[in-house]
Amino acid sequence: MRVLGIDPGLRNMGWGVIAVDGSRLRHVANGVIHSEGGDLGPRLVALYRGLCAVIIAHAPDAAAVEQTFVNKDAVGTLKLGQARGIALLAPAEAGLAVGEYAPNAVKKTVVGVGHAAKEQVQHMVRIQLPGVQFDSPDAADALAIAICHARHLQGRNIRVVA
Amino acid sequence: MRVLGIDPGLRNMGWGVIAVDGSRLRHVANGVIHSEGGDLGPRLVALYRGLCAVIIAHAPDAAAVEQTFVNKDAVGTLKLGQARGIALLAPAEAGLAVGEYAPNAVKKTVVGVGHAAKEQVQHMVRIQLPGVQFDSPDAADALAIAICHARHLQGRNIRVVA
Repeated sequence: MRVLGIDPGLRNMGWGVIAVDGSRLRHVANGVIHSEGGDLGPRLVALYRGLCAVIIAHAPDAAAVEQTFVNKDAVGTLKLGQARGIALLAPAEAGLAVGEYAPNAVKKTVVGVGHAAKEQVQHMVRIQLPGVQFDSPDAADALAIAICHARHLQGRNIRVVA
Repeated sequence: MRVLGIDPGLRNMGWGVIAVDGSRLRHVANGVIHSEGGDLGPRLVALYRGLCAVIIAHAPDAAAVEQTFVNKDAVGTLKLGQARGIALLAPAEAGLAVGEYAPNAVKKTVVGVGHAAKEQVQHMVRIQLPGVQFDSPDAADALAIAICHARHLQGRNIRVVA
């Protein structure tokens, strides 16, 4: 089974795909879809098409999106919401059930504590996905979300559900 | 030329299509796409497919979406953002340029004052689109957005751009 994790953002949409083999996890692919500047419509189209291409290329069986609204102001929250709408739409349009996890739930599953630092999360992602490489913190976050969802689907860490 | 106006909302996505014939406007169709309860992914898919169906059925040449983030809290703003992402994506995916107008800009164009009451907006929508009928305030708002965009495209009321 393959799990797609998405860290939604309007500028940087992180994504990561992992394979679940019994209790073991394996890294498949990760990356970031960028959309900077210009009109909002074409930017959202770029994010949508990018995610659709990832889904076609890596054929995940399940997906999960980070449930975050950590923003200073209403404008930022609205922007994040718009990107998040696309992050939820693309897998749902492909017929995938989409899980949602709060950041603390992801950290708790991947690191063991809900208030882990970004470096700790990345360290544990590397340990749980041997050989993984990522260039961007958004892709690492997306892999952490995929791990969280995989563990949840495996019936462990039931408490992680946000 | 046909103009599609969209009043974005997660529960109720209002839409209205008008035809521009010289300086005259004509009502084509309006309605509301509902999406209540359940998982967010399928709800966003329902909104997306509903808007795509409207675009296919009424073949608009341009589209506009209300630029609003009037919400009490971050959770509500995030929800609105998600619906708004879909409202922007559907016409952009169909190759339409999507205008964005703040609520006050819409009121200023349609009624003449930026702080008009909802009833005044609906009254002026009825006057400018003879014979129009609408069941929902969200559809009426969407028609007002379409009128605002049409007037802007006609080169009038340049000041309306948000």
